[in-house]
Amino acid sequence: MIIFYRIQSDSPNVRKVSIMLQETGLPHRVHTVAKRDGERVDDDLLRVSPNGTVPAIVDQETGATLFESGAILYYLATKSNRLIPADLAARGEVMKWVMFEAANMGPAMSELYHYLLSDAADEAIMGRYRRKLAQFCAILDRQLAGRDYLCGDCSIADIAIFPWSAIIEFMAEISLDDYPNLRAWVDVMNRRSAIGGEMRQGG
Amino acid sequence: MIIFYRIQSDSPNVRKVSIMLQETGLPHRVHTVAKRDGERVDDDLLRVSPNGTVPAIVDQETGATLFESGAILYYLATKSNRLIPADLAARGEVMKWVMFEAANMGPAMSELYHYLLSDAADEAIMGRYRRKLAQFCAILDRQLAGRDYLCGDCSIADIAIFPWSAIIEFMAEISLDDYPNLRAWVDVMNRRSAIGGEMRQGG
Repeated sequence: MIIFYRIQSDSPNVRKVSIMLQETGLPHRVHTVAKRDGERVDDDLLRVSPNGTVPAIVDQETGATLFESGAILYYLATKSNRLIPADLAARGEVMKWVMFEAANMGPAMSELYHYLLSDAADEAIMGRYRRKLAQFCAILDRQLAGRDYLCGDCSIADIAIFPWSAIIEFMAEISLDDYPNLRAWVDVMNRRSAIGGEMRQGG
Repeated sequence: MIIFYRIQSDSPNVRKVSIMLQETGLPHRVHTVAKRDGERVDDDLLRVSPNGTVPAIVDQETGATLFESGAILYYLATKSNRLIPADLAARGEVMKWVMFEAANMGPAMSELYHYLLSDAADEAIMGRYRRKLAQFCAILDRQLAGRDYLCGDCSIADIAIFPWSAIIEFMAEISLDDYPNLRAWVDVMNRRSAIGGEMRQGG
């Protein structure tokens, strides 16, 4: 059994793991982390995730305790042998896009979100993140040209990048009309995540 | 043969791959990316790394073209079967710390660096990154208590986190005296990287 530490509302990072557990069908139990005075107060979570961040998981079968959504996606893909290719080069390609999100798109969205909520919202600073994000959208749009998914077949690269892409218009004042391949892929991923993954399509 | 795209001076992200190639002894050829008017102008690089970032690699043997230092570490570890454990839970643990660097420590150091070089250096903004980095140091210090390396044996987790840790005192006004396990590990990694990895110690 996998214990899945999350918060009540799906943050983009939590959503990645929600989608992955749906896609793989791995047995799991949800542990919703409580807040008190705006702070997460959960000793169980802190034993698993030293920074108090969610998502985090404990796999009671193997003893693995993991934080960082990208690492959790990798672990669940390897465990279930799903949404990650076996071939060395193809697997490297998938991990490249997982890392692209972890190191670039996720941090830029998180920083922009911080300033959007801040009293000291600075247009120059937010503009820098919006320009970065527009550049990432252009890169993703080119990667998706002629492809249904980022690396051909659906993989954890799509699951890592989709939850941020799904809110980028709303958060970063970017229009996906400028990135038609990215928009079409967001639509595909929206439908796929709504039904719990392709494996469920048969019934 | 692996083509390794780098810049003349070792940035922390480039240094990860330099160390990894030394550690594994994989045959490679260096392609140093030129700058013109402060911009990287290198069509070969842009074919491999759409954002123009280094490090990037092409593995002529498998056809893999990779950017993102964390993905390159993972790929080279998997290819050489070195510095990454085979066991599912142990491998997840290593990838957790690789992701911790990619999504947290690296971005915070990069943002701090941006503001240090900026005319509009804002003490409040830089202070936020310094506090985050001090928290990451505390987390790493606890993880390293009673361990020679982050996950027991030396792994790509150490290689991902070391190059930033080696300059954190200088860049973030943090004293590693407050984090003795982290300091001891930085010393170990400094020695290890200077001799090109433990495998070279025999001669």
